[in-house]
Amino acid sequence: MQLGMIGLGRMGANIVRRIVREGHTCVGYELQADAIDRLRDELGDSFTGTTDLAEFVARLTPPRAVWVMIPAGATGAVVEQVAALLEPGDIVIDGGNSRYHEDIARSAALAPKGIHYVDIGTSGGVYGLERGFCLMIGGEREPVEHLDPLLKSIAPGIGAAERTPGRTGAPSTAEQGYLHCGPAGAGHFVKMVHNGIEYGAMSAYAEGLNILHRANAGAARAGEFSAELTPLEHPEYYRYDLDIPEVAEVWRRGSVVASWLLDLTAAELYADPNLDSFDGRVSDSGEGRWTLDAAVDTGVPAPVLAAALFGRFSSRDGALYADKMLSAMRKAFGGHDELPEA
Amino acid sequence: MQLGMIGLGRMGANIVRRIVREGHTCVGYELQADAIDRLRDELGDSFTGTTDLAEFVARLTPPRAVWVMIPAGATGAVVEQVAALLEPGDIVIDGGNSRYHEDIARSAALAPKGIHYVDIGTSGGVYGLERGFCLMIGGEREPVEHLDPLLKSIAPGIGAAERTPGRTGAPSTAEQGYLHCGPAGAGHFVKMVHNGIEYGAMSAYAEGLNILHRANAGAARAGEFSAELTPLEHPEYYRYDLDIPEVAEVWRRGSVVASWLLDLTAAELYADPNLDSFDGRVSDSGEGRWTLDAAVDTGVPAPVLAAALFGRFSSRDGALYADKMLSAMRKAFGGHDELPEA
Amino acid sequence: MQLGMIGLGRMGANIVRRIVREGHTCVGYELQADAIDRLRDELGDSFTGTTDLAEFVARLTPPRAVWVMIPAGATGAVVEQVAALLEPGDIVIDGGNSRYHEDIARSAALAPKGIHYVDIGTSGGVYGLERGFCLMIGGEREPVEHLDPLLKSIAPGIGAAERTPGRTGAPSTAEQGYLHCGPAGAGHFVKMVHNGIEYGAMSAYAEGLNILHRANAGAARAGEFSAELTPLEHPEYYRYDLDIPEVAEVWRRGSVVASWLLDLTAAELYADPNLDSFDGRVSDSGEGRWTLDAAVDTGVPAPVLAAALFGRFSSRDGALYADKMLSAMRKAFGGHDELPEA
Amino acid sequence: MQLGMIGLGRMGANIVRRIVREGHTCVGYELQADAIDRLRDELGDSFTGTTDLAEFVARLTPPRAVWVMIPAGATGAVVEQVAALLEPGDIVIDGGNSRYHEDIARSAALAPKGIHYVDIGTSGGVYGLERGFCLMIGGEREPVEHLDPLLKSIAPGIGAAERTPGRTGAPSTAEQGYLHCGPAGAGHFVKMVHNGIEYGAMSAYAEGLNILHRANAGAARAGEFSAELTPLEHPEYYRYDLDIPEVAEVWRRGSVVASWLLDLTAAELYADPNLDSFDGRVSDSGEGRWTLDAAVDTGVPAPVLAAALFGRFSSRDGALYADKMLSAMRKAFGGHDELPEA
Repeated sequence: MQLGMIGLGRMGANIVRRIVREGHTCVGYELQADAIDRLRDELGDSFTGTTDLAEFVARLTPPRAVWVMIPAGATGAVVEQVAALLEPGDIVIDGGNSRYHEDIARSAALAPKGIHYVDIGTSGGVYGLERGFCLMIGGEREPVEHLDPLLKSIAPGIGAAERTPGRTGAPSTAEQGYLHCGPAGAGHFVKMVHNGIEYGAMSAYAEGLNILHRANAGAARAGEFSAELTPLEHPEYYRYDLDIPEVAEVWRRGSVVASWLLDLTAAELYADPNLDSFDGRVSDSGEGRWTLDAAVDTGVPAPVLAAALFGRFSSRDGALYADKMLSAMRKAFGGHDELPEA
Repeated sequence: MQLGMIGLGRMGANIVRRIVREGHTCVGYELQADAIDRLRDELGDSFTGTTDLAEFVARLTPPRAVWVMIPAGATGAVVEQVAALLEPGDIVIDGGNSRYHEDIARSAALAPKGIHYVDIGTSGGVYGLERGFCLMIGGEREPVEHLDPLLKSIAPGIGAAERTPGRTGAPSTAEQGYLHCGPAGAGHFVKMVHNGIEYGAMSAYAEGLNILHRANAGAARAGEFSAELTPLEHPEYYRYDLDIPEVAEVWRRGSVVASWLLDLTAAELYADPNLDSFDGRVSDSGEGRWTLDAAVDTGVPAPVLAAALFGRFSSRDGALYADKMLSAMRKAFGGHDELPEA
Repeated sequence: MQLGMIGLGRMGANIVRRIVREGHTCVGYELQADAIDRLRDELGDSFTGTTDLAEFVARLTPPRAVWVMIPAGATGAVVEQVAALLEPGDIVIDGGNSRYHEDIARSAALAPKGIHYVDIGTSGGVYGLERGFCLMIGGEREPVEHLDPLLKSIAPGIGAAERTPGRTGAPSTAEQGYLHCGPAGAGHFVKMVHNGIEYGAMSAYAEGLNILHRANAGAARAGEFSAELTPLEHPEYYRYDLDIPEVAEVWRRGSVVASWLLDLTAAELYADPNLDSFDGRVSDSGEGRWTLDAAVDTGVPAPVLAAALFGRFSSRDGALYADKMLSAMRKAFGGHDELPEA
Repeated sequence: MQLGMIGLGRMGANIVRRIVREGHTCVGYELQADAIDRLRDELGDSFTGTTDLAEFVARLTPPRAVWVMIPAGATGAVVEQVAALLEPGDIVIDGGNSRYHEDIARSAALAPKGIHYVDIGTSGGVYGLERGFCLMIGGEREPVEHLDPLLKSIAPGIGAAERTPGRTGAPSTAEQGYLHCGPAGAGHFVKMVHNGIEYGAMSAYAEGLNILHRANAGAARAGEFSAELTPLEHPEYYRYDLDIPEVAEVWRRGSVVASWLLDLTAAELYADPNLDSFDGRVSDSGEGRWTLDAAVDTGVPAPVLAAALFGRFSSRDGALYADKMLSAMRKAFGGHDELPEA
């Protein structure tokens, strides 16, 4: 089967590699000609590319399958441009991190032209080439079924995990790592919540490891924490000089918190035990915020997901004005001065 | 009636002033002789002081009432010292911010000697001289009743607030601003939770004002927030250049969030509209932590109080290691770099 | 000065009462004729009313000032209806709890017709008649200034609180309880955040009082909490049988947490000490949600406000499915059964 | 090598099975004679058991290794009893879920007798027999090294996960699934934080799945959520009827949130798609609480771990009194009635 890929950045190129590996062919569109050349050198005749959008569309056989894999901010305009060149029955796929609201709007805009719109939330990051990508898919049933051979090639396959106890018979697509979740936007909706969960789980590990990091706060020499006004009531309980990289490692086998995130964390800690290469200004890329919006809209308590998101805001000084306000109040009612820098 | 006051710092001196003002007399004990002299000059014969503890005890008429008003860390030792000089029937009062666990222990230690122990949580801060102090009291009934004339003088009195609808007849002591809460430790327990609430309410204002502070994030020139990766979806909704000191002021009259904390906040904001005199490193003094311990022990959800406490920890870089960990994970799975400083 | 009031419910009628009391006149529009009659009986000639919208508009002298005070859901349609009857220079006021997004849209829609739109966030609840209403105002400068005499009558006035230290000279309108916050939507934006703060402060009190409520968990007879699997490590620290209504009362005078909310809480607790007349299903009315949306949009950490909102969701069983999921996981990895009902 | 096991419940028996499988021998002590018989039948001569403690000790060859694997509440007394029968050089292991404070005390109490105390936090639950147990160990270096052959047999072994990139040479014990973390208590400290993380990660999944569960809130027929006072502003964004068991399944392969907890969750959801067999009253077993205590003591923000713990408290009606208080306040200032049951 043939796929057209718009955007040959890391994610796009890796998806191309996976489908070509499984015997499919691909036409790429990309502004950087050298990215095309490199992929052509690597993949041979199964891949061709062009920097001309009309040429890109012309090379695809109807019904065309065009996957747009570019930064979320640019996706809308590119979908419009390519859709203007497509024909009824063709399929446009947004594989990036668009908000699902936009999928609903784009799908509705393309429907009158007979062009199908499919949104695919794609998880796997830099490891996707090797592990396969987890695909969460929204759109009409027919085009999604049409794409099945491609989706199967991109997804990890059933071998990537042990089969869930109780499941028998032919594996569902979910067991192979891809799932048609529902109508337009459903793929990005599920991916959005997936990332919200990711934020929460990441913070669970980070908070716990931070507690281990401070487990030596009661040591006589623990000057690092001396600026705390409240002295430790029981310093004898905080005299552990823990080897955090080894702790992360030991949890990888047999424990309840074993996970892929922990695998990555253990690797990072092994390479940089004190995390000296980081400043602690943590970014967020939209999905965590939108997940919280969805929780608020539908009346779902999401304190863990919210705390994880707010922690990122705070890491980038988002709380600074509020903190100054607290210090001002303390000064006002109690005459308290602020603590000096530790 | 006569009171012995150990510690003539701001709090101790103001309590002395209030009781003398109401016709009582006071003997002070304090290491700084000039603090004694200044108070003597101000209050005249109703007040005498000494830097000698035995002399202090000797000047008091049995049954003695000795109020210890010194930093929490030093209270235990001083209570022991003075108790060694007291007689059965005398009363020791801890008016500071001791943890209530210690009250239970101290009370039990003094009981065999016939010395009564009373713990008093004291709220009012630097305004207590003028407004009166709110007193939360723990201990046996008899000594607390014996102290009633003094307590009444220190407390704000019923005129400090409108009477609660439905209350009639002779006002309870609570309506006058002091309350015998229960046995040893009950006073500091109630004061502890009071401060926990205080932390939560402070953060509610601070967070809300921070949102108002960022209400102009969508202005074309809003470079301050440009380091955020997720662009504002609707910048047209965040184009308000609000006058925060005036907003705090307007809420003081007629609104549901009117409070004494807001009065203080409005004053601070009027004096320093951008809070430039603060760095935002917010201290905490024990009660907020102990409140959380009590919530955890008894299975009470306290997410607001916890969030307020953790915000203070974060303001003093308590989350830094965890934040570095999050950045490390993001780099690991997504190849993401950290955001540069804004 | 003359005001037209659409909606004579509790809030609308009380605003009418306050302006008439100060010498203004009012024309009311309301579907319930008897509501008009009652107000007419009470207020005399300064008030007239009608159930006919065209008649209502005809009775007003240009430039008309029309205040719409009806449930948020109905406001949009009524603003449209009345605006169709107004003339250039007239003013429509939305005094309800609309989302500020709608103010921006409505203001823009009315501008071409020369009709001014003013949004007013109104705090004060059932006590507004007596205390005055705190008014947060958005819109163009000119119509807001035109309305000044009315606004001043509705607001509490400077006497409602002591003057903020440092403020001198002629009081600002904020000191009188009303504030022009900025362009269209600014009034409802500030009111929205006000309510967000209100949610947070309410939860701070509620959590703290809940901890006091459980302060007796260590009593031998404390069967109420026996379903907890983790036994209290130190039951001797939780043997306080506190009188919660008296504690709320004592905090009203002299303490740092004194506030109007606390005044109300003390009154409720006095009337119903065990809160037996409540089920604990706490509603929320939009502003708390929108405040969180604003925090998320602008990157402001708001963990306290979020916790307060999520607590309300949980009180209405919003967490039930998540809780079942947790029990399912516990059963899966540890073979744990759920706790029975206490 | 020989191990003495006190307690042949599920955990104890599975540990015995693993060491016998690797060629070690075991003497068991247990009050239930039939539990001994069953294990004897299964394991043959490598295992003997007794219901007599002195006999148990007599059968062990010095230096004895005695593993106590019984409920945390009973561990202290049993350690004392067995220690009274041991000799210098013998080792007592607490493999249960004791608080690490107790380890410090017990270790110090046994030291003068020359008896070594080793605390081992054991993760793996009902799957430990098959997967191996993750072991977090505290105590002196010498006895821990002495136990190495046994620990290696109980732990999962390096094959249980791919090797962390960058690690070369002979695998550390952490890579095999067991780690000597530090002196007395260090094992249970690390296990405690492990469980704290577990709570947080569990809640991240549960909250996210709950949002998916409500993704259909905007459907016309969505009566389930109709008791919410704030209507959905955009019902068109919440019309997804998601198959939650399939979503959990698809995330198991290739996604960033893949984990063992997710594997278990997917299995539970497959077996009981609507979780009808659960009531949602979620227990907690101490470690989550103690983790929070440690965070508070050392000034580490742990909002995610706290939210997870408080969510469990709320699931068991821990917030009920606070919620009633909120409803009381709303009635007081706004005249609002509570929402009826949905």
